[in-house]
Amino acid sequence: MLTRIDHVGIACHDLERSVAHYQEVFGLAVVSRETNDEQGVREALLVVADPGDGAAAALGGGSYLQLLEPLGPETPVGRFLARRGEGIHHIGYGVADVRAAMAAVAGRGVRLLDARPRHGSMGASIAFVHPKDVGGVLTEFVEAAPR
Amino acid sequence: MLTRIDHVGIACHDLERSVAHYQEVFGLAVVSRETNDEQGVREALLVVADPGDGAAAALGGGSYLQLLEPLGPETPVGRFLARRGEGIHHIGYGVADVRAAMAAVAGRGVRLLDARPRHGSMGASIAFVHPKDVGGVLTEFVEAAPR
Repeated sequence: MLTRIDHVGIACHDLERSVAHYQEVFGLAVVSRETNDEQGVREALLVVADPGDGAAAALGGGSYLQLLEPLGPETPVGRFLARRGEGIHHIGYGVADVRAAMAAVAGRGVRLLDARPRHGSMGASIAFVHPKDVGGVLTEFVEAAPR
Repeated sequence: MLTRIDHVGIACHDLERSVAHYQEVFGLAVVSRETNDEQGVREALLVVADPGDGAAAALGGGSYLQLLEPLGPETPVGRFLARRGEGIHHIGYGVADVRAAMAAVAGRGVRLLDARPRHGSMGASIAFVHPKDVGGVLTEFVEAAPR
């Protein structure tokens, strides 16, 4: 069902400062910046494993750090920052078919936060699994957009 | 410097229960179980991207979930669980050369938790970066053992 670790989502107070820090310290490059009003975040994706490489492409896509700055305090990431401070927010796994993955885990009694797939970064179809049914880990399925 | 997301480390109260849950819900398979007295954990590695596949091998190794149960309350993972409950504990990045990665980030003013590499899962050489210098993210370098 899971083909790779697509990304790790990291909550931060200041997106540009965090992007600059990851660029300078780890040499990561930004591949995408988006504002997602539905999720209440501004985000940047930094490439860890490039999907343009044959290796990562064979796994269905690349691997990224996703830096997330909340659009306001009353958003999921804003509440996370108030409660826990900056840090790892969620993990996103690559899947070949997000609807099939949703149906599979739902059939095993696991709750989903999304009734249907929604739009994720770079045209992906995504869905979140309830963290209470995954040992406290906010878990996301990511079906990458066709290249 | 970073070649892939090697693993995400997840703190849990009951390793066997968490392993069973990930096996049942996501179909992940255990590739390694170890007790690391130095780090105060019992752990299991579950395969997300198999290093035996050519694709993952070309990125320098596989990608895993690392489930961590503390050996006692006065261990790093034990204190994490008491403070935050179950959830994502750290992220490990694949690197080709752990000493070179340590030297590179130290040269950029980032503190390391380890003065020299230590033993990680499945014979890897690892080192941790101070989370205060990486936006609250406990960050690990992983140089996989030669296959």
